[in-house]
Amino acid sequence: MSDETPFDDKLHEECGVFGVFNHPDAATLTALGLHALQHRGQEAAGIVAYQGTHFVTERRLGLVGDKFTRSEVISRLQGSRAIGHVRYSTSGGTLNRNIQPLYADLSTGGIAISHNGNLTNSSQLRSSLIAKGAIFQSTTDTECILHLIALSESSLPIHERIIYALKQVRGAYSLLSLSPEGMIGVRDPYGVRPMVLGKLVNENSSDAHILASETCALDIIGAEYVRDIKPGEMVLIDENGVRSLFPFERNYSRFCVFEYVYFARPDSIIDGLSVYETRKNIGIELAKETTIEADLVIPVPDSGNPAAMGYARQANIDFELGIIRNHYVGRTFIEPTQHIRDLGVKLKHNANKASINGKRIILIDDSIVRGTTSKKIVEMMRQAGAKEVHMRIASPPTAWSCFYGVDTPERSKLLAYRMSVDEMCDFIGADSLAFLSIDGLYRAMQQPSRNNQNPQYCDACFTGDYPIKLEDEEKLRISSLLGE
Amino acid sequence: MSDETPFDDKLHEECGVFGVFNHPDAATLTALGLHALQHRGQEAAGIVAYQGTHFVTERRLGLVGDKFTRSEVISRLQGSRAIGHVRYSTSGGTLNRNIQPLYADLSTGGIAISHNGNLTNSSQLRSSLIAKGAIFQSTTDTECILHLIALSESSLPIHERIIYALKQVRGAYSLLSLSPEGMIGVRDPYGVRPMVLGKLVNENSSDAHILASETCALDIIGAEYVRDIKPGEMVLIDENGVRSLFPFERNYSRFCVFEYVYFARPDSIIDGLSVYETRKNIGIELAKETTIEADLVIPVPDSGNPAAMGYARQANIDFELGIIRNHYVGRTFIEPTQHIRDLGVKLKHNANKASINGKRIILIDDSIVRGTTSKKIVEMMRQAGAKEVHMRIASPPTAWSCFYGVDTPERSKLLAYRMSVDEMCDFIGADSLAFLSIDGLYRAMQQPSRNNQNPQYCDACFTGDYPIKLEDEEKLRISSLLGE
Amino acid sequence: MSDETPFDDKLHEECGVFGVFNHPDAATLTALGLHALQHRGQEAAGIVAYQGTHFVTERRLGLVGDKFTRSEVISRLQGSRAIGHVRYSTSGGTLNRNIQPLYADLSTGGIAISHNGNLTNSSQLRSSLIAKGAIFQSTTDTECILHLIALSESSLPIHERIIYALKQVRGAYSLLSLSPEGMIGVRDPYGVRPMVLGKLVNENSSDAHILASETCALDIIGAEYVRDIKPGEMVLIDENGVRSLFPFERNYSRFCVFEYVYFARPDSIIDGLSVYETRKNIGIELAKETTIEADLVIPVPDSGNPAAMGYARQANIDFELGIIRNHYVGRTFIEPTQHIRDLGVKLKHNANKASINGKRIILIDDSIVRGTTSKKIVEMMRQAGAKEVHMRIASPPTAWSCFYGVDTPERSKLLAYRMSVDEMCDFIGADSLAFLSIDGLYRAMQQPSRNNQNPQYCDACFTGDYPIKLEDEEKLRISSLLGE
Amino acid sequence: MSDETPFDDKLHEECGVFGVFNHPDAATLTALGLHALQHRGQEAAGIVAYQGTHFVTERRLGLVGDKFTRSEVISRLQGSRAIGHVRYSTSGGTLNRNIQPLYADLSTGGIAISHNGNLTNSSQLRSSLIAKGAIFQSTTDTECILHLIALSESSLPIHERIIYALKQVRGAYSLLSLSPEGMIGVRDPYGVRPMVLGKLVNENSSDAHILASETCALDIIGAEYVRDIKPGEMVLIDENGVRSLFPFERNYSRFCVFEYVYFARPDSIIDGLSVYETRKNIGIELAKETTIEADLVIPVPDSGNPAAMGYARQANIDFELGIIRNHYVGRTFIEPTQHIRDLGVKLKHNANKASINGKRIILIDDSIVRGTTSKKIVEMMRQAGAKEVHMRIASPPTAWSCFYGVDTPERSKLLAYRMSVDEMCDFIGADSLAFLSIDGLYRAMQQPSRNNQNPQYCDACFTGDYPIKLEDEEKLRISSLLGE
Repeated sequence: MSDETPFDDKLHEECGVFGVFNHPDAATLTALGLHALQHRGQEAAGIVAYQGTHFVTERRLGLVGDKFTRSEVISRLQGSRAIGHVRYSTSGGTLNRNIQPLYADLSTGGIAISHNGNLTNSSQLRSSLIAKGAIFQSTTDTECILHLIALSESSLPIHERIIYALKQVRGAYSLLSLSPEGMIGVRDPYGVRPMVLGKLVNENSSDAHILASETCALDIIGAEYVRDIKPGEMVLIDENGVRSLFPFERNYSRFCVFEYVYFARPDSIIDGLSVYETRKNIGIELAKETTIEADLVIPVPDSGNPAAMGYARQANIDFELGIIRNHYVGRTFIEPTQHIRDLGVKLKHNANKASINGKRIILIDDSIVRGTTSKKIVEMMRQAGAKEVHMRIASPPTAWSCFYGVDTPERSKLLAYRMSVDEMCDFIGADSLAFLSIDGLYRAMQQPSRNNQNPQYCDACFTGDYPIKLEDEEKLRISSLLGE
Repeated sequence: MSDETPFDDKLHEECGVFGVFNHPDAATLTALGLHALQHRGQEAAGIVAYQGTHFVTERRLGLVGDKFTRSEVISRLQGSRAIGHVRYSTSGGTLNRNIQPLYADLSTGGIAISHNGNLTNSSQLRSSLIAKGAIFQSTTDTECILHLIALSESSLPIHERIIYALKQVRGAYSLLSLSPEGMIGVRDPYGVRPMVLGKLVNENSSDAHILASETCALDIIGAEYVRDIKPGEMVLIDENGVRSLFPFERNYSRFCVFEYVYFARPDSIIDGLSVYETRKNIGIELAKETTIEADLVIPVPDSGNPAAMGYARQANIDFELGIIRNHYVGRTFIEPTQHIRDLGVKLKHNANKASINGKRIILIDDSIVRGTTSKKIVEMMRQAGAKEVHMRIASPPTAWSCFYGVDTPERSKLLAYRMSVDEMCDFIGADSLAFLSIDGLYRAMQQPSRNNQNPQYCDACFTGDYPIKLEDEEKLRISSLLGE
Repeated sequence: MSDETPFDDKLHEECGVFGVFNHPDAATLTALGLHALQHRGQEAAGIVAYQGTHFVTERRLGLVGDKFTRSEVISRLQGSRAIGHVRYSTSGGTLNRNIQPLYADLSTGGIAISHNGNLTNSSQLRSSLIAKGAIFQSTTDTECILHLIALSESSLPIHERIIYALKQVRGAYSLLSLSPEGMIGVRDPYGVRPMVLGKLVNENSSDAHILASETCALDIIGAEYVRDIKPGEMVLIDENGVRSLFPFERNYSRFCVFEYVYFARPDSIIDGLSVYETRKNIGIELAKETTIEADLVIPVPDSGNPAAMGYARQANIDFELGIIRNHYVGRTFIEPTQHIRDLGVKLKHNANKASINGKRIILIDDSIVRGTTSKKIVEMMRQAGAKEVHMRIASPPTAWSCFYGVDTPERSKLLAYRMSVDEMCDFIGADSLAFLSIDGLYRAMQQPSRNNQNPQYCDACFTGDYPIKLEDEEKLRISSLLGE
Repeated sequence: MSDETPFDDKLHEECGVFGVFNHPDAATLTALGLHALQHRGQEAAGIVAYQGTHFVTERRLGLVGDKFTRSEVISRLQGSRAIGHVRYSTSGGTLNRNIQPLYADLSTGGIAISHNGNLTNSSQLRSSLIAKGAIFQSTTDTECILHLIALSESSLPIHERIIYALKQVRGAYSLLSLSPEGMIGVRDPYGVRPMVLGKLVNENSSDAHILASETCALDIIGAEYVRDIKPGEMVLIDENGVRSLFPFERNYSRFCVFEYVYFARPDSIIDGLSVYETRKNIGIELAKETTIEADLVIPVPDSGNPAAMGYARQANIDFELGIIRNHYVGRTFIEPTQHIRDLGVKLKHNANKASINGKRIILIDDSIVRGTTSKKIVEMMRQAGAKEVHMRIASPPTAWSCFYGVDTPERSKLLAYRMSVDEMCDFIGADSLAFLSIDGLYRAMQQPSRNNQNPQYCDACFTGDYPIKLEDEEKLRISSLLGE
């Protein structure tokens, strides 16, 4: 895989969340925070602000930087509290009514929620909610949670109603809500998706509290990092400050390892580890395991850059920017047609021929999904005159689909499921192909090795070891076994 | 009042509905039918079509003729069944999510509904539905009905679920629904809003059934008028044809008299009476009651035309088109600002000076709401050289607000509530002013007089005699008496 | 013909012009004036304002009332001088760059011009200008005039440069220009197209001068009518007031008679004659010439209304609004496809069945172009139950194309060119058909009869007597005779 | 300077051109070629295609990848010949009518032209053309050339007419024209702006010829590089192939050195030199001249990357990606307000704190314009914990404005004009600051040193040595000296 744009042969994070409590420019800060999280979802963005008596919502298809910079948009979003969301298009399609945050009137006031992740029992929840008379306006998971909240006992405090709702859902989520009572953040019991707490001293010297998917969103507004929210933790933020609850049964942390491999921004720090340094370590481990004689190490930009630098240093081979990326592609092709996906690589990358011609090269990419991009890049290297092309992948083979918030093709389309490593090498046309081992990956994250009893991370896409029950999937599989 | 455009000093009908069952071009016919009903609501339009397995919806701000004529829109609306809706902007504002028909998934399939009218207990219903956990996405009455249907016992047939829902609502409505089972039309027990049944023989010689607010919508597509739906009647249309139920307690018919006075199109026939001929009769009765010596009878176009012709004939005074209307105003000013409302008359009408100069004239308008338009028109007549200006109104004074589906200003803004007829005459600057009597109005509709025990029509805007309980209003009034 | 909407079977005026000199709200007044002239062209509108040092232009497709009411548009058009233009789509298509006024920098300053009419030698002028190196950006006649001005001797005063240009053009035009020197209006030597002078006292008690196509555009802003501009007259308006020149060889006035018959708004007064009263007179003359026993006289609305009233009064037959027009059609169908043209009548008119059923009717329309509309309306009358349908046309047969600013189909498509009156009657399916005689038309305009030596009006569409040489047409005809 | 996005503190190339002759998908290839040249101008793009009888034009504000990917746009551009243009907003503003290519009808057929560069006598040419009666529709230089062509002797062949026109202009240009005769490319006599010739074998085995600003635009469509067009060369491409003329007096080549430093894409090869390798060489030379003890070499991404890699290797210091760039900024902020410019850096870059903290760093940027970006980046490094920040610039101080096609601020705003290097160092807050010497720059381009008699490149922005007379500038300066 090569970078964060949609419509290429990559896995895509579905969402990013950001919220501010107690700052006069809450909506502007939220827009900036979402801008820093844009790599987590480029298709749509939304912000809800609360100004003491009512909520205002703005939801738009497109980039935050295009849609939330006009003063007329921001000026509608008055109030000292705001939460926002960026999303990538998934099933359900590109619909305005799917853009988060979602909002509902409760008898006790309104509530807005948004989340990053994916529920594994949402289709069952949806059916049972519809049977009870709930009317769905969107096709998002988030609306299930909203209905469950709305149906909870209205005399309970809002955080209890959210707990009641979340106890009925399975899956991975980092959820953010805003209501007159305050702002609430929750990570699922396994902590699959990230969320951090930050703070900013505002003009009248009181603290503004911030919840965000990654630390890079704190950096953009100059906010201070406080700590990572813990798996299964609920954080309640109101005038009295920040409180913490652990309402769910305790579980082991199973944070998504692919956030380190590819999703997160390299300048973010997650759970104490720098994403950039981790990627360099991955490159070092990869070099230790798979090195080969060559003239140059070349990253597939931009996501392969740190691993390639680590690899080059460890292997003591020159690092070169042998592939030039056209930065204007990102927002280019609005319709995700197959035709456009096919054009993808040519539009986005070009070989730096002068550097490559006559050289034996090692290409570093972060992962292989369908293999179409890798195939084209290897071919491009050969056309540019490379004598040998050795592909090295900065993660183990991606052989299983993700059901926890990453947009993966169905398993049968994953190259690593369909083929052995040798077959994959043939398919992409490289002279050799090697992947990082699963233990190598854990070593890069400063673990001695994978704890197979209780893995330190969710690595289901590499191992098929799914920490959270896939209820909808299982029901589907059983139905199909029974011939339904 | 002078015509059907929005943002002038007029009462506005809120909606029109139209549906087709069993015709290959159901959506196109629906678009044409809605076009013929455009005078009932110019702000937005929507169509839902059902093609055997799923529903498709198109909802747009603007005129049917602008928004539903593109082939790409119509071609999305496949199926032999469709229902549609036009609406005027009311409280709740100009929001895409308020455009009808509304749609919901039920556990037994989907349902789309739209209605013409207004519920008088919707605010209470809404509160109680929210307390039960319902999430509202629009601010329309119709969504209350949809939630009530969704919350009904799902094992019941769909028409029973609709009956269950409608038994909980108070108000005036002509409702249309489309579900896999068929198309259903219902008029409220008092039959305040109109609805007719029509039919069209389609290409394979079977009958297409049609439900529409007015007969003019049957005419535009060459459909045959079958009959008016009766007050309190529910009509079920499916493959087996048309069935009729009367699920509600029987009531006297109280059809809206203002439909004859102003709302309905003159070429429509309601309950056996031609709207055009009725308006001419109104002019005749008005002349009998209020005639005065003059040179010319002049209508405020276009709504005053038939009454003015009747008046002129009865009074034996020349009829003249002394006011010329600019037909390009209708869709002109999108924002209903007060400033634009003030500009209204000048932009829309001009005096035909050559005919008016030096003449004593009788102006015929259908009603007076706030009086601002009348004032300007009288002034325009004087500037054009009229020697005398006598205003005659083709209905009794409008002194009460409507709560049954007409967009009326609050009562305190109605000129006839604020002033006596003499004061009104002074205010508008006429030499004389007279209104039709309430019995004159009933005579024009071929009744001997108003039956004060059991009035033949709903005439609450003239008499304050509201046939359907105003539950939300009463609650508000009591709350305000109690100082809440 | 029945009314002013585009895309029906009617002749269309191509343009209207309006200009204001010396008023702080010049652009707003111009927008209002153009709104009153919207019937002269509905496709596009433009305004140029001059605020002392530079010109600002706004040109938009669509209606003035839709596109020039936003404050951001008007606020860009600063200055006390402005001219504007509305146009109907003609050959050259619906292009933004064709919208007038056009503007050019001259070495002595800028100039904006717009005109109503059509040049008969523009194709030759264009060729010769291109041969001289002129670059054309639009496909309008007006740009020829602009190039001729730009190429004139730059040391001459601006009005001399305009005269130099106009001496090279043939055709019918009422032209308006704005330059730092002032505002200039010109009517062609035959005065085919209308233009009037008006005035308005502005806030600081000085006179604002106005030039407009019709008096209804003075009325809308409360301006005083001063006089009609004379054929061949050039009016120069600057700080010193209004001056008048007659730079061309004198000719007989040949004002377009069809302006009285159909184009002009009924509330306008042209050359001392009320358009409305003239149309009533036409009805009276038509009744004298063509009366027949019947129960009702029915206009094809709205353009047939005054003639039908005159006819009914003269023939002593009841006048009835037997056809109801849907006022929402006007801006309906944006693409002038044949399919839409065919739909036209059904979408726009409906029979008032209750009045027509069982009656012998006389239908009054202003003209017949292709005959398609008349055919459909006669058929609609029969379907509504009319016992007899007699068509009476308020003008002579339209048997010749116009080359002076009216969008006419080519001659071979004109029904009156293709058929005798009896054949036309058969074609439209009427029981009888009769047209007004040419002398009857002149009598309605208070002439004893047509002066065949020196006709008082341009009536070429009825007589083929073209007052201005059709140079482009002749060249084309000769070319085709020579087989080129 | 750091990268290619608009509205930051950078110099901007104004344009890129691309043309195809003899390929069935000419317009699609042109869109792809322009996409590869998008870094040369992001504001607007246009394509003209010729299909044998007439020309079709599409011109749009925005990115090629957004505006020219829809099938309806490309399908309008039929024909086997097309030329296109991307542009950056300059004086004249963001106007649709300024988007190139421009088109004119000539008496002998049409011609479309576009160019990359800037004329130094356009304001004088424009005045004299207006005095001769030319009407300007845009504010671009290109229209001057078009008028000069249109005014040339029409009996001459089209390439002679272009030569006639170009002999009257002064300045830097690479021009592309398309006419029925063929496609023509011209570089000005000094060859300031680049242009290359390529070829592609099309489906029927004949050659498609291509002209483009850079080789990267050949790469994207898989075309073969043939050669660079020479300074002062005119290339004529028609059915007979490619011919070459040298119509102008011979001059020394003075290619823009800044294309190597910053403008051109690193994967392009200009005049035999790889841009990427040249930038690495620059880094090497810079290290030789300015090295200092430090822990890390960090580029300001992405433009500083190759120089930083060269520097690090030469100085034997670790290279690290210490600044992370947000790739979603590029098209972000449409309005170039000062406020947005100020936000620029924070929105676009973030420090990779984990790598920087506690380190002595050498920052590499390609140039300093106003200095605002550098100041913010130095500050960002200190906040991230850098112990020392040494800034090294991969070019000499930019002390002079460009008049040959680069959008430079006026000289008084250039930091290097206002301050000494020490003052600049203080201003940006670095611990040390050094620039590459002019001879170092020439050495990086494989020259022994700058030939001060006859410099090998145009380096006016560094030296003030302007090879082409600045006629408009001089006139302005003289006028202002004379007090005009």
